[in-house]
Amino acid sequence: MAVVKLSEEERLALLPTLTQWEYQSESDSIRKEYRFRSFPEALGFIVNLGVEAHSMNHHPELFNVYDRVEITWRTHDCQGLSRRDIDMAKLCDIIYAKYIN
Amino acid sequence: MAVVKLSEEERLALLPTLTQWEYQSESDSIRKEYRFRSFPEALGFIVNLGVEAHSMNHHPELFNVYDRVEITWRTHDCQGLSRRDIDMAKLCDIIYAKYIN
Amino acid sequence: MAVVKLSEEERLALLPTLTQWEYQSESDSIRKEYRFRSFPEALGFIVNLGVEAHSMNHHPELFNVYDRVEITWRTHDCQGLSRRDIDMAKLCDIIYAKYIN
Amino acid sequence: MAVVKLSEEERLALLPTLTQWEYQSESDSIRKEYRFRSFPEALGFIVNLGVEAHSMNHHPELFNVYDRVEITWRTHDCQGLSRRDIDMAKLCDIIYAKYIN
Repeated sequence: MAVVKLSEEERLALLPTLTQWEYQSESDSIRKEYRFRSFPEALGFIVNLGVEAHSMNHHPELFNVYDRVEITWRTHDCQGLSRRDIDMAKLCDIIYAKYIN
Repeated sequence: MAVVKLSEEERLALLPTLTQWEYQSESDSIRKEYRFRSFPEALGFIVNLGVEAHSMNHHPELFNVYDRVEITWRTHDCQGLSRRDIDMAKLCDIIYAKYIN
Repeated sequence: MAVVKLSEEERLALLPTLTQWEYQSESDSIRKEYRFRSFPEALGFIVNLGVEAHSMNHHPELFNVYDRVEITWRTHDCQGLSRRDIDMAKLCDIIYAKYIN
Repeated sequence: MAVVKLSEEERLALLPTLTQWEYQSESDSIRKEYRFRSFPEALGFIVNLGVEAHSMNHHPELFNVYDRVEITWRTHDCQGLSRRDIDMAKLCDIIYAKYIN
C-alpha cells in the first residue's frame, strides 16, 4: 500500500494533536528540538529512537550537537507529510518523556 | 596514582550506601540487574552508560538480553572492588532513574 | 508460523556452515566471541547489531567488557536452537567483517 | 589552556592534510558527508564516534538521515576552527575507514 501525503484538511486536523512540533511548509515536514542533560543522554535517546524507527522502516532526519537533538519527519515516498510522520512524532515524545522527569 | 582495592572495613561501610547492588565475594565485585520497557530502551541505557564510562576510563561488564541489562563493576587494575566501582554503581542508578518514571 | 527447534540432523548439517561459532549442548545454543580495537568500536558493533536484531524481532544475548563482545543465539519460543539463530549468527559475522580489515 | 582559532596561515597549511573535508568560510568550520550500507551501520558509526568525542570533550555537529551522516567540526570556545577540529576530522576518517572495505 502506497503511503499518501496528508491532504491540507487532514493536516490541519492532525497537527494540533502534536505538542510543540513545528510545521515547515516549504518542505511539508514537521520539526522539534529536544534538550538533554548531557551528550551521553542525548546519544542514548538517538539510539532508542533509531532502533524503534528502523524496525518501523521509517527513519527521521536527525541533527545533534552536544545536548540538543532536532528531529524532522517527512515521508520520502510521498515527498511530504504522511500519517506515519504524525505517529512517529508522537513516539518521539513518548521516548523523550522519560528524560524530563 | 594506583587504584587500590577497598579494605574489608571500607567495603562494609560503603556497600550499604548502594541500593540493591549485590556483592559477589568470589570475584570481589558488585552486580545489579535493570529492567526496561523494551529492547530499544535497554540499548539506549547501554549507550548512555557506555559513553559516560569510557570518558571516565572505567568500563562495566554488561550483559543484555531483550529488556534486561545486568551490570557488574570490578576494577581490573586491583583485581577487586575499588572506590571507583562504588561511584560507577551510583552513576548507573542515576542514569537508570530516568527510565522508571 | 511457530518457530521450531532444529532436529539433531538439521543441526549437524547447519553448524558446519558457521565460522567459529561454538555449540553449547546444555543450553542448545551457539556462542562466539568478537574482539575489537577499542570500547567505542565494540559499542558501535553492539548498536549496529542491536538495530538489525530488533527489526527482525530476534534478540541476542550479549556480553561486553571493554573490547570484547560475546554473542549467544538461542530461540526463546522453542527453547533451543532454530534456523533463525543460524541466520543471525551469519549476520553477526557479516557485521563484524567490516571491523577486521 | 585556552583553545585558539587557527590563523589563516595555519588553516591554509592544515586543510590540505585532510581528505575531502570542505571548508565553510561563513562559519569557519569543516564538513564532510559519509555514506553507509544501511541505517544500522550509520548508527553504529555515530555511536563509535560519539563515545570517542565525549571522552575527548569535543563534540561534533552531526546530521543523519538513513544511510548518510554529515559531520561538521568547529570549536565553540574560539568561535571557529581550531587544531582540535583538524584532529577530530582525521579521527572520523579513521573510524569510517573500517566501513568502506
